[in-house]
Amino acid sequence: MALIVQKYGGTSVGSPERIKNVARRVARWRADGHQVVVVVSAMSGETNRLIALAKEIQAQPDPRELDVMVSTGEQVTIALLSMALLDSGLKARSYTGGQVRILTDSAFTKARILSIDEQRMRADLDAGYVVVVAGFQGVDEAGNITTLGRGGSDTTGVALAAALKADECQIYTDVDGVYTTDPRIVPEARRLKTVTFEEMLEMASLGSKVLQIRSVEFAGKYRVKLRVLSSFEDHGDGTLITFEEDEKMEQAIISGIAFSRDEAKITVLGVPDRPGIAYQILGPVGDANVDVDMIVQNVGHDGSTDFSFTVHRNDYVKTLDVLKNVATHIKAREVQGGDKIAKVSIVGVGMRSHAGIASTAFRTLAEEGINIQMISTSEIKISVVIDEKYMELAVRVLHKAFGLDQPA
Amino acid sequence: MALIVQKYGGTSVGSPERIKNVARRVARWRADGHQVVVVVSAMSGETNRLIALAKEIQAQPDPRELDVMVSTGEQVTIALLSMALLDSGLKARSYTGGQVRILTDSAFTKARILSIDEQRMRADLDAGYVVVVAGFQGVDEAGNITTLGRGGSDTTGVALAAALKADECQIYTDVDGVYTTDPRIVPEARRLKTVTFEEMLEMASLGSKVLQIRSVEFAGKYRVKLRVLSSFEDHGDGTLITFEEDEKMEQAIISGIAFSRDEAKITVLGVPDRPGIAYQILGPVGDANVDVDMIVQNVGHDGSTDFSFTVHRNDYVKTLDVLKNVATHIKAREVQGGDKIAKVSIVGVGMRSHAGIASTAFRTLAEEGINIQMISTSEIKISVVIDEKYMELAVRVLHKAFGLDQPA
Repeated sequence: MALIVQKYGGTSVGSPERIKNVARRVARWRADGHQVVVVVSAMSGETNRLIALAKEIQAQPDPRELDVMVSTGEQVTIALLSMALLDSGLKARSYTGGQVRILTDSAFTKARILSIDEQRMRADLDAGYVVVVAGFQGVDEAGNITTLGRGGSDTTGVALAAALKADECQIYTDVDGVYTTDPRIVPEARRLKTVTFEEMLEMASLGSKVLQIRSVEFAGKYRVKLRVLSSFEDHGDGTLITFEEDEKMEQAIISGIAFSRDEAKITVLGVPDRPGIAYQILGPVGDANVDVDMIVQNVGHDGSTDFSFTVHRNDYVKTLDVLKNVATHIKAREVQGGDKIAKVSIVGVGMRSHAGIASTAFRTLAEEGINIQMISTSEIKISVVIDEKYMELAVRVLHKAFGLDQPA
Repeated sequence: MALIVQKYGGTSVGSPERIKNVARRVARWRADGHQVVVVVSAMSGETNRLIALAKEIQAQPDPRELDVMVSTGEQVTIALLSMALLDSGLKARSYTGGQVRILTDSAFTKARILSIDEQRMRADLDAGYVVVVAGFQGVDEAGNITTLGRGGSDTTGVALAAALKADECQIYTDVDGVYTTDPRIVPEARRLKTVTFEEMLEMASLGSKVLQIRSVEFAGKYRVKLRVLSSFEDHGDGTLITFEEDEKMEQAIISGIAFSRDEAKITVLGVPDRPGIAYQILGPVGDANVDVDMIVQNVGHDGSTDFSFTVHRNDYVKTLDVLKNVATHIKAREVQGGDKIAKVSIVGVGMRSHAGIASTAFRTLAEEGINIQMISTSEIKISVVIDEKYMELAVRVLHKAFGLDQPA
């Protein structure tokens, strides 16, 4: 008998029929003798409907009141799923985030979980109940309703699994696992049986939006065994997200190719090469609430250097504006930029112990005539910025070059 | 400076525009220096939408889970109204029933309020906030969400007014007060400036559905000054519901004519006239979950009597079925009935001190050739059962006979 936490997203509970399907799946796990806690999101479209309604009243909805409002989406789903479970003869009971109680800080619309009181859930589980918990929400010390931000239901699932010391946290979604890359771009992409937390973090932050990144961090921190599965298929083991050291089987060198078309690059040319210059450039950018992703600075010569970074494409114009003043102030020669770029990344823990990954990647791109504009590396990732028109080509040739289309 | 509790029903908050109107009205009360607590219902149609969704999952939705679900309707409204108040520059804060906290028993879908913790509201009011509370809902000792049953938002309003010792509880609705009778039947019907709690109870239970009857009982018990007003008009004082003894002005003898077409009558003929016979007839009816309204038994003769009562028209056939066996058992001669009846009632505390009301009523009906089938009286009410085709006529002539069409 295992204790399983299952999380179902908005698409998986998007209609009464789909909710009944979830109930059937839960019933099978119960029939196999397992204890089950289910975390659900709002029915697909509901959160957006509520936000739109709020904006009809207040252009910038008050964060506290917005949380009171959007948290109703999950509250409806927990009731419906509990009814479906009861209707199929199981014992079931729903809880809002506040009832569990999932204690958070008071940062409305993006709260962080501080603690979870698992006693009530455990008593219910021991009494044979399926416990159904609203994802995405909690309550602060003063009893105000809070939400964890978009995708926060994944975090709720992982946090409950951690609090209950569950044997596994299963994230049911509309894909059946984590792939070596997006199958829409590379039809030969394969589902990974396992991926490490570090790889998952790099993949998630690079646009493979299977799991919310905070939930992966959380799972890593509390050593929760996390599995991504499809809620639309009855078979398949999905992808297990593992701790590297637990991994007995031969680890593939490269796990996947991630990509993003959401960025723009900016280069400040002819920057005086002196201490503090990076801060002088990026300080004002941060003050303008712009998040910076890749940062590249090369060795300078003749007392000056070039400084490049990428931002979200939506922030491109705003960032150029900010830098106009900055460039004058620091006596830079020129500010250049471009928003027709893509970032492609090779991710794999095997990089740590295998040399030559970078050169294979660069040679592969060169053979296709793809020019690399920026390069940035971490211990388990190599990212390149290229012209966006070559993105699909780059993903395909790299996928093949690292043998990702071959059965593991 | 007064402390006012205002309650707005589903129609009054049925759209973003109407919610903004409510905010404007609240703002005027604040501008006049009053402290305001607002209780709101779900947006019109929302509760029915949620119940329909629940029934797609479970034909008879589980009561606990149904309460979790339908309580979201008011939760959305409190957030929207708070946003509208904030948007108009007021300080405002929303609370669910559980947050206030409105403690109820655990009778899901028809819970009763046990106590209200008014400290948090009072602190907010003293800090200049408008307090917006979800009607219709509460929380039981174990922290489960409960609802008070249909129309329960009125009860929430009155209960909050009682707990806060508010100066007045204002119920905003789609009519501008309590009328001498339904203006759709008698165009000359007048709005009553005042009506006593006892009269209101008789009127409400007789089909003048301005206020939920439990809220009126509650207001009477806790001596809450209750006023019914229109949420669609900016002027008018509505109808104040008073305690008789508080009333300084000359009280009208009759306050109104109420009527109902929802009933059916049943007569058990030739019942042996012996103790316990009423219980032998009505016991099985009650066991079948049928509520009995009027009960009439006349003096018997020759050792037998006739026993009549009315039930809701929907229960008519079921009640006849039940009585078939009963009649045989108690050796009654025959069971008769009819569902083409109407009940018309004259209500007024003035009856206590004025003779001749009944004879005026009976003469008025006789002059129009309207036959009276059953009569039942209380201290402040005379009800007659007549053929339903005469209902409108009876209401009109009685309204005129008691001078209700004349300015008070």
